[in-house]
Amino acid sequence: MNYVSTTAVTPAVSPFDALNLTDVTAKLEDGILIVTLNRSRKMNSFSEKMAADLVRIFQFGDQDDRVRAIVLTADPTAPAFCAGVKVARGSSLLGRKEDTETEHRDPGGQVAVAIYNNRKITVAAVNGHASGVGLTALQFPFDFRIIWSGSKLTIPFVRLGIVPESTSTYLLSRLIGESRATAVLFSGAVMQPDSPVISNLYFQVLPDKMDVLPAAVILAKNISVNSSQTSIAYSKGLLHHAGSSIEENHLLDSRAMKLLGSSRDAAEGAKAFMQRRKPNFPDALSRSLSPWYPWWKVTDVRHPKSKL
Amino acid sequence: MNYVSTTAVTPAVSPFDALNLTDVTAKLEDGILIVTLNRSRKMNSFSEKMAADLVRIFQFGDQDDRVRAIVLTADPTAPAFCAGVKVARGSSLLGRKEDTETEHRDPGGQVAVAIYNNRKITVAAVNGHASGVGLTALQFPFDFRIIWSGSKLTIPFVRLGIVPESTSTYLLSRLIGESRATAVLFSGAVMQPDSPVISNLYFQVLPDKMDVLPAAVILAKNISVNSSQTSIAYSKGLLHHAGSSIEENHLLDSRAMKLLGSSRDAAEGAKAFMQRRKPNFPDALSRSLSPWYPWWKVTDVRHPKSKL
Amino acid sequence: MNYVSTTAVTPAVSPFDALNLTDVTAKLEDGILIVTLNRSRKMNSFSEKMAADLVRIFQFGDQDDRVRAIVLTADPTAPAFCAGVKVARGSSLLGRKEDTETEHRDPGGQVAVAIYNNRKITVAAVNGHASGVGLTALQFPFDFRIIWSGSKLTIPFVRLGIVPESTSTYLLSRLIGESRATAVLFSGAVMQPDSPVISNLYFQVLPDKMDVLPAAVILAKNISVNSSQTSIAYSKGLLHHAGSSIEENHLLDSRAMKLLGSSRDAAEGAKAFMQRRKPNFPDALSRSLSPWYPWWKVTDVRHPKSKL
Repeated sequence: MNYVSTTAVTPAVSPFDALNLTDVTAKLEDGILIVTLNRSRKMNSFSEKMAADLVRIFQFGDQDDRVRAIVLTADPTAPAFCAGVKVARGSSLLGRKEDTETEHRDPGGQVAVAIYNNRKITVAAVNGHASGVGLTALQFPFDFRIIWSGSKLTIPFVRLGIVPESTSTYLLSRLIGESRATAVLFSGAVMQPDSPVISNLYFQVLPDKMDVLPAAVILAKNISVNSSQTSIAYSKGLLHHAGSSIEENHLLDSRAMKLLGSSRDAAEGAKAFMQRRKPNFPDALSRSLSPWYPWWKVTDVRHPKSKL
Repeated sequence: MNYVSTTAVTPAVSPFDALNLTDVTAKLEDGILIVTLNRSRKMNSFSEKMAADLVRIFQFGDQDDRVRAIVLTADPTAPAFCAGVKVARGSSLLGRKEDTETEHRDPGGQVAVAIYNNRKITVAAVNGHASGVGLTALQFPFDFRIIWSGSKLTIPFVRLGIVPESTSTYLLSRLIGESRATAVLFSGAVMQPDSPVISNLYFQVLPDKMDVLPAAVILAKNISVNSSQTSIAYSKGLLHHAGSSIEENHLLDSRAMKLLGSSRDAAEGAKAFMQRRKPNFPDALSRSLSPWYPWWKVTDVRHPKSKL
Repeated sequence: MNYVSTTAVTPAVSPFDALNLTDVTAKLEDGILIVTLNRSRKMNSFSEKMAADLVRIFQFGDQDDRVRAIVLTADPTAPAFCAGVKVARGSSLLGRKEDTETEHRDPGGQVAVAIYNNRKITVAAVNGHASGVGLTALQFPFDFRIIWSGSKLTIPFVRLGIVPESTSTYLLSRLIGESRATAVLFSGAVMQPDSPVISNLYFQVLPDKMDVLPAAVILAKNISVNSSQTSIAYSKGLLHHAGSSIEENHLLDSRAMKLLGSSRDAAEGAKAFMQRRKPNFPDALSRSLSPWYPWWKVTDVRHPKSKL
């Protein structure tokens, strides 16, 4: 497997050329979009360009029907999966001077929102050390996290005089509960993936860093090949936007079930199950969603000036 | 213990005769209502009648003061605890043709709501394999889950072109956190009860399937004999309808404490504690709730036509 | 280490004299406020005065810039960390006669709110057995819990004809998920800290009860010495008052990041990180919060008559 992938993944014109990716690379293989952080020599430290690239590629992955799952990874021979933000007085990542306090859009948060709202299966393949935004934006918003057991993990925000960002205070409590979220965010400890304080975050912990991306791709393919794209999109919607009560959720999932229960994908799913064969789902996300989806209010979080 | 129980549990007229149960059986023993799935030859696959029977018997258990706890189980010699819904194009369980998308009421969700809103202690005694609704409706909404360690557990919804139902996207994140809920709902993996991804769901995991129901009954009796029925009802209300902030919850539990602190049950509870004997609580749910209970808005989720 | 601390912790006039503490003692050492329950001979059972003392000392700790973290503990040679409320018919802790059902303010809840809303790091050092309010008010609202592995833990409320109090139905589900919260609140079991049902509540479980307070102080000092007070306050705010959606949280943490990213503490944090030395943060909570903090509505939960 070629870990030093480039943006030119297809012989001719790459679908990614228009995205002008530099700080990440992307390739599409059998429906799996593999995104690789591309600043290995700088410990894959987070940059504004990396944030912009990640937002663009995850939006591409959301929109393009050929993409059934997205895996984010790094070169496993790099010194880190992501060393976070290089802190320095006045880093624009912490807020540009020209922005007011309500105009600033945390770049890591823009990435986290793009990943969490992605309607395909997302997998973080963490094959190295991670700090700060390397956890908050590049791990927490994913559906699955697979990690190398030797990864060193740190959250330094309160030690730097700033705050946990990238929507981490929202995501981490939801993911593993507030008791451990508090410990992860405030202890300042260097954690390892099998630490009780963070272990439930990971679907798999693997002893060899070279196995992390292959395991993530196997998981992504297994789900992709066997699942309806529309089902995944509705199910992620129901999970991320659950009802505010059990009754409200019952009305939501009843409606989703009525819509999908009579779909061509449901017919194919039942038939394949009965014939004990792999399904061949005919529906695609771009044309098979009902007008009801999304049923929640989608908040526009773009920078006020970029909305114009 | 007679696992092949029948609806005629009392020598004369059974209190359950009027419920016309067929797909489950019920018996009441020492305040414990034991409900047994009654489609063993069909792997206890879920049916519309089973859903209706479960809603009726849990409503009975909620209303009848003699019932102090409810245990759901299956014949441990059956091939499965519950094999889920037999999928087939057009199964009415996924939506009847005559219903619009807002009229459909997912039968598993009707069961889940009836169990979750039940004001008595509920225990799922899972003594066999479970798939789909056999987890979502028949395990997630219970207060306690006790399971045979050999149970194979699968959630197939996205592989069938449909969505997780029975309010599972609401319940599972609340129960074990969104990180593992996502993995359980999307991985398609066959899980076992000691799998890290699902283990926190279970209060006890037992190596012998014949021990599961007896353990559930012992737990149910232990809580029932020692607890005030009114306390359980208020406490489940406080847990399922917690305040939207710590302050709001403080106002709710202060009010509940003031109401119950001067009750006859509280006096008996304190006396029994001091005398180191079992309490004999005089209050009963049918007559001891204050007009304040329930303090939340109860949403009517019956089918629009059945409300007429 | 002197476990039998007194309120006279400084040679001259103690800053705590005005607080009239009797049922707890307090001392301030190197920025760590150590609060010790002072009813050892009564098994540190909870009293109205203990509640009032705890509210006062945690409010002091919140307001005084010298306090960087607060540790709550008990004499490790006492028969219990906190034996809960001595139940008796008509205990004013369960509601005074003169209060209506909406006027009662659960004393444990007043303590829990004061601790949870405290803007400094809080650590519970549980070096003995705990029952009822000894868990709900004196453990759940803390940022970190460190406990002696031999501690016996019980939640007796439903067995006493009353309800879980001290905002425990709000906090416990958030902390460890509703599956285990239900089991903890209803099972009536005597739990130990390594029990799967409650283990995720604890940051550290230590085999020697004499090590619990020292470990808590080391943790508190480590965080205090290395963290910005303002960062901790904003971060706890973001964690306890997360956005109602990922987008809303993104707007909140972006704003906090913009405010703190240009602060003197952030400049010092970055410089210290780069120079690999301990930071010396210049900001202090009393003067460095923006008018935006707190951004949530603060509910006044004082007794209606004490607000006048």
